Amino acid sequence: MVDVAAVDETFKRLQSHKGVLGIIVINADGIAIRTTFDNDLTVQYAALVSHFTVKARSAVKKLDGDNDLKFLRIRSKKHEIMIAPEFEKSHEYYLVVVQDPSRET
Amino acid sequence: MVDVAAVDETFKRLQSHKGVLGIIVINADGIAIRTTFDNDLTVQYAALVSHFTVKARSAVKKLDGDNDLKFLRIRSKKHEIMIAPEFEKSHEYYLVVVQDPSRET
Repeated sequence: MVDVAAVDETFKRLQSHKGVLGIIVINADGIAIRTTFDNDLTVQYAALVSHFTVKARSAVKKLDGDNDLKFLRIRSKKHEIMIAPEFEKSHEYYLVVVQDPSRET
Repeated sequence: MVDVAAVDETFKRLQSHKGVLGIIVINADGIAIRTTFDNDLTVQYAALVSHFTVKARSAVKKLDGDNDLKFLRIRSKKHEIMIAPEFEKSHEYYLVVVQDPSRET
């Protein structure tokens, strides 16, 4: 089970950062269970992120069975997407933060 | 054409950093054209990185046709892989740096 209070706390803390455009929590099936984006953007980011995270994790484990993915960062001209696959205890959810790199502090 | 002197300079500069385990330059076909790793590791990293970078770039452009991938960072328990798709003028080569996160400065 995800710790709802801990997720709420994380959301609040991240939203107060300058440059944060939105935050999503995605489950292992790529479904967003919490989001600050509208529906369209949430679905787009959730699809992109779950696709990558699953691929990245399996690639990392394939290179070394003893290794595991900790963090993924995709920087584009307009956005920076940060993915934390282990932000809560169960490791069943991914935390996704989308940031505007020009407003990063 | 890739600027050979600029690539040499980048290699030298990066190798002097503490925690850098190896550096690879990969072309658009996923072939390593420069590497500090042995053959096996070079082939493994080249396959992983070219796969991701192509996927990440197309995903970023799909979300916004005007956007483009700038930087990719895959952090695992044991390594941190940093991928710069635009490190030289032609944008035809990817620079890959593998770092030991516990020795990062």
